[in-house]
Amino acid sequence: MNVEARTSETGHPRVVIVGAGFGGLQAALAIGKQQPEVDLTVIDRTNHHLFQPLLYQVATAALSPADISTPIRHVLRKQKRTEVIMAEVTGIDIESKRVMMADNLSIPYNYLIIATGAHENYFGHQKSWGPLAPGLKSIEDAQAIRNKILVAFEQAEIETDPEQQKKLLTFVVVGSGPTGVEMAGSMAELAYQTLTPEYRHIDPGMIHIILIEALPKILNAFPEKLARRAKKKLERLGVDVRTNTPLEEITKDGVVAGGQWIASTTIIWTAGVQASPAGQWLGAETDRAGRAKVMPDLSLPDYPEVFVLGDTANPSQDGPPLPGVAQVAMQQGRYVASVIKQRISGEPAPEPFHYHDKGNLATVGRAYAIASIGPIRISGFIAWIIWLTVHIVYLIGYENRTIVLLQWAWSYLLLKRRVRIITRSVRLSPPSDPNHKSIPEKAKIATNPKQ
Amino acid sequence: MNVEARTSETGHPRVVIVGAGFGGLQAALAIGKQQPEVDLTVIDRTNHHLFQPLLYQVATAALSPADISTPIRHVLRKQKRTEVIMAEVTGIDIESKRVMMADNLSIPYNYLIIATGAHENYFGHQKSWGPLAPGLKSIEDAQAIRNKILVAFEQAEIETDPEQQKKLLTFVVVGSGPTGVEMAGSMAELAYQTLTPEYRHIDPGMIHIILIEALPKILNAFPEKLARRAKKKLERLGVDVRTNTPLEEITKDGVVAGGQWIASTTIIWTAGVQASPAGQWLGAETDRAGRAKVMPDLSLPDYPEVFVLGDTANPSQDGPPLPGVAQVAMQQGRYVASVIKQRISGEPAPEPFHYHDKGNLATVGRAYAIASIGPIRISGFIAWIIWLTVHIVYLIGYENRTIVLLQWAWSYLLLKRRVRIITRSVRLSPPSDPNHKSIPEKAKIATNPKQ
Repeated sequence: MNVEARTSETGHPRVVIVGAGFGGLQAALAIGKQQPEVDLTVIDRTNHHLFQPLLYQVATAALSPADISTPIRHVLRKQKRTEVIMAEVTGIDIESKRVMMADNLSIPYNYLIIATGAHENYFGHQKSWGPLAPGLKSIEDAQAIRNKILVAFEQAEIETDPEQQKKLLTFVVVGSGPTGVEMAGSMAELAYQTLTPEYRHIDPGMIHIILIEALPKILNAFPEKLARRAKKKLERLGVDVRTNTPLEEITKDGVVAGGQWIASTTIIWTAGVQASPAGQWLGAETDRAGRAKVMPDLSLPDYPEVFVLGDTANPSQDGPPLPGVAQVAMQQGRYVASVIKQRISGEPAPEPFHYHDKGNLATVGRAYAIASIGPIRISGFIAWIIWLTVHIVYLIGYENRTIVLLQWAWSYLLLKRRVRIITRSVRLSPPSDPNHKSIPEKAKIATNPKQ
Repeated sequence: MNVEARTSETGHPRVVIVGAGFGGLQAALAIGKQQPEVDLTVIDRTNHHLFQPLLYQVATAALSPADISTPIRHVLRKQKRTEVIMAEVTGIDIESKRVMMADNLSIPYNYLIIATGAHENYFGHQKSWGPLAPGLKSIEDAQAIRNKILVAFEQAEIETDPEQQKKLLTFVVVGSGPTGVEMAGSMAELAYQTLTPEYRHIDPGMIHIILIEALPKILNAFPEKLARRAKKKLERLGVDVRTNTPLEEITKDGVVAGGQWIASTTIIWTAGVQASPAGQWLGAETDRAGRAKVMPDLSLPDYPEVFVLGDTANPSQDGPPLPGVAQVAMQQGRYVASVIKQRISGEPAPEPFHYHDKGNLATVGRAYAIASIGPIRISGFIAWIIWLTVHIVYLIGYENRTIVLLQWAWSYLLLKRRVRIITRSVRLSPPSDPNHKSIPEKAKIATNPKQ
């Protein structure tokens, strides 16, 4: 079945959206509202929209995956001409206007929106570093990190060699953007406040959480003063913040950073992203981070029916690219929906896309955030309340997330981390030197004397 | 380090509990309360206690895994002489009084409590049927079933061959004990009420949920009248209940039951359990289901310091074994704690264990349950309220689970299933015959015309 047959059949053009992150989902909702007569197909390789900014809360056992994800088809259930397909897109046939998927499937389009986001950039070390230092892009990533942290504590509890125990209780976060800072702060609270009191052979002095940043300051996108305050707050939480410290190597036993060896079994990567391969699918010109260079209306040069947005696109003709945040993608999603509407109705060319920067927010622990909103700079509890409000409003945008709010409050008030489950079959390594005597408390476990 | 050194060191005997299910955890809590001076070690292969009776709610996307699990060390955090170890026990050296674990670890005991539960019994087909028909014993099981159900729907949505679609939308539950009945009822609600309205190419008539039972009636442990009512309720929910239908074969494409072939990609096993291998570890005499035969005080013959309880033990000298329910294990856990207390203080031998049957409950869907409490037989909403109350009280026993209560209410009122996440990388199979024309709605997907 081809697109001609279909469009003549229904009389409506077909819009295909690839990717249901912030950009793709906003585009889908806007098209459903503005142009209910358009046939819309949304393709994603997962079945859920993920609220990525809170993924670090899943990684640190404060929220369950379901608290920050919603089935895509549930969000779009009321748009009767919208269908949702769970499939892996493998390429675009831009000349015959088809989206190619795994297993020899394809679907034709009249208009195409590519919103496939970004993944970790390990700067040429993807294969060797990727498996050792998971990032924070998917539920699987967050669960892998949660498992790593919780397993490290379980293993440290039965470990009798202090060197091994130190290695197990050293946690390295690479990169100090908002994700790295939020992750390090939340991990410090998890480790010092929630976990340590429940172990018999671990005391807070054994734990070492290190945030590594190559630049001279953390939170580079924030004003100097706020970044300094965030650093102080992190240090008060117990995080060892190391700026001017470029990462040089990652192995399964630790990292080399700033020329120094740090033994650690838990390394978390938040140091950079790379656009999805959509630029290559489209044969488009890309920038250094792999983002497709697009026209001011976010369409691809020479292909006015193809739009690229969010972390996959670079619409800036000169000057720095837009920040890789949800706000940019959401505004672009709504903008592209309106461009397509104008195209279909034959209206004149739209104004170029303009990003309305509503400000930058980052949390540092439970009740402390920094906010840079226009000329306003706030830090502390008030900024945290702003952060909380903004996030709850966006979460509620898709579905009523009262439960999430309650869970946050619960977690906040009682310092509980409810989601401390180690999933999959995990096997601990044996303590390396069970007869070592230098641990102050008595070693409770012996190696099997018969073997 | 051996047990003599340790006991002379602290002056206190060491109790080791293997398994932190209902029985093991109750024993640990009772020992902590009655004998705070005893050194207690609790070993489990996971880090969490699991509220197994609600696992079907995780499998049907109504609850998150964290809603029904609590870290074992969190439950026992206030017992300062109790340590918790996450390790896989591999055997017991009953003569030298040591618990052997993976990785050449071992720990000595003065008193040992084995509470390692049961796993699925595939009646000799473990290897071939096990991977095809997961049971409901662990979080991983429940997530595997949730994934299977949700993936089947995603795949049916893009499938154009009606035969394949029918196979994808046929769900087989084997076994009609409370777990099978609860699973089938909850699955019917998930499929008909929550999922179907959100798919464009699936209508309720395509879905087939089959409950298979070899015996002439479902819920064999319940009175005839209640079982009949439960069957009617299941049928009203849309479940095809087939009694007198022995299962004969399971393949990756379906099952043979009662001589009939049923094509299905989702098969769930609730047909029987087998005790954990603890009986073999102990070299004990076991019954047909692998349960260790124990004395009236739940100790092992000739080894008064070793106790076995819950699904791993059979204390009945003659007559049928006790039912494999949480109540039995919990009562036994508390009983064994009191026996150990009497042994340590040199008091006279205790009364034999006696099970106080508090009744049987099973839910069939959201607002219907059956209850058999002494001479009382109730079915319907009142029974469901009893069921809800009992379960909430037990959940709250370990930690305040107000959130779970709210989520239930939420789910109940709004028919939402919040936890519809397909985890791990799942790849759908291609539609088998994309050019098939007999699906009423237009097929939206074509195979790639270029390949």
